[in-house]
Amino acid sequence: MTFAVIDDEGTTAKAIAGTPFTEPEYTGKEWPLADVRLLAPMLPSKVVAIGRNYADHVAEVFKQSAEHLPPTLFLKPPTAVIGPEAPIKIPEFATRVEFEGEMALVIGAPCKSVKAEDWKSVVRGVTIVNDVSSRDLQFADGQWARAKGIDTFCPLGPWIETDLEKLDFTNTPIKAHLTRDGVTETKQDSNSNQMILNLGEIIEFITASMTLLPGDVICTGSPAGTAEMFPGDRIEVEIPGIGSLANPVERA
Amino acid sequence: MTFAVIDDEGTTAKAIAGTPFTEPEYTGKEWPLADVRLLAPMLPSKVVAIGRNYADHVAEVFKQSAEHLPPTLFLKPPTAVIGPEAPIKIPEFATRVEFEGEMALVIGAPCKSVKAEDWKSVVRGVTIVNDVSSRDLQFADGQWARAKGIDTFCPLGPWIETDLEKLDFTNTPIKAHLTRDGVTETKQDSNSNQMILNLGEIIEFITASMTLLPGDVICTGSPAGTAEMFPGDRIEVEIPGIGSLANPVERA
Repeated sequence: MTFAVIDDEGTTAKAIAGTPFTEPEYTGKEWPLADVRLLAPMLPSKVVAIGRNYADHVAEVFKQSAEHLPPTLFLKPPTAVIGPEAPIKIPEFATRVEFEGEMALVIGAPCKSVKAEDWKSVVRGVTIVNDVSSRDLQFADGQWARAKGIDTFCPLGPWIETDLEKLDFTNTPIKAHLTRDGVTETKQDSNSNQMILNLGEIIEFITASMTLLPGDVICTGSPAGTAEMFPGDRIEVEIPGIGSLANPVERA
Repeated sequence: MTFAVIDDEGTTAKAIAGTPFTEPEYTGKEWPLADVRLLAPMLPSKVVAIGRNYADHVAEVFKQSAEHLPPTLFLKPPTAVIGPEAPIKIPEFATRVEFEGEMALVIGAPCKSVKAEDWKSVVRGVTIVNDVSSRDLQFADGQWARAKGIDTFCPLGPWIETDLEKLDFTNTPIKAHLTRDGVTETKQDSNSNQMILNLGEIIEFITASMTLLPGDVICTGSPAGTAEMFPGDRIEVEIPGIGSLANPVERA
């Protein structure tokens, strides 16, 4: 197991000594990406998520307009994190389980009270998260920690895009594709321009309260189009410019 | 900085090599407890808390009977944890900040799907937590992560009582004393016999969903009597048989 740099062509994984938080020091080992099993790119000390951050998703899930139901913070436990292709395992008691494809930020430096305009100075890169949620538990419990905190309910990856100038974060497509019985349907097809709080405002909001540490993951909210998934399905969340995070669904 | 064993008289701290998760190996160094600065006894990978687990507290905070509002899980971030005597720091935007004295469990072994009757086999010991909460943020946000997750809002300690046979967990007093302007008032004065889910049931409930890891902390719920606190106050949570966790309150 090692950290590795994926080259720009997405074909080779080059092992590095140490962690992603310093300049990469290549060990000289490398493999074709196709021969490598990618794990979650980070094991965070905490996963902070913002809920109700896309107006279209607020309308579909909460049946209210976003102006009456502002964004809110919740936490997912680090034990829920899995990597690409690891199965999402649904226990019997978790009913109406839905995927939520989202852009995620990986924190690069310890930080507190960060101003919105300085957000890039504390972020190591962006990746993709699937904020898997049991809607029934979510609304029965009131608090979302259990519905969104079940083991395997936080697929993360496939890697961290560290070039923050590569994407236009005010206009980034976010898609989720559901494959069932060999048929693939695009269920989420939205754009980061639908965000209520933008990335800088999210970092400012969180760090007004909480210190963030290197490796902490911020889930920036799900757009509309979330849908129920079942054992046997396969979910692929796609953000052009970052990549695709795909996971099969199984019964726990 | 070292882990240490506190002797039964509570007068001496004896340094150990390694962690609290194995048989203590004494290094030979020891100090009078009065000369030692205690830090939080554990830096958890997660803090899982159960809300609405005391009927009397449900009635006072939620204005509803417990049967209509069952216990719910939430998470506090590890960055909120502080030790005894470290100041609780209240930012301006966190209004109506209250203390909540609770018994806490420290997990001793990785575990999943634990049966209630086996709970002691996965618990390293018990300690005290103050689940500091901004009531205004708690109800404005809906989700409790921010209101209960602000830096310093999770005082923990003073140590871990590892003798699980020492206490009668079905009948353990839990108290919180508020000192203001030199006058001390006992605000919480309840008993674990008021718990809705008992300790075993809490562990079973959590581990049905989430894997727990050594050092993870479980906050077992606050009894009635929580009250607002202000900079200059001092809060002492007392559980006879464990000890006292005291923290001053400051403006952040």
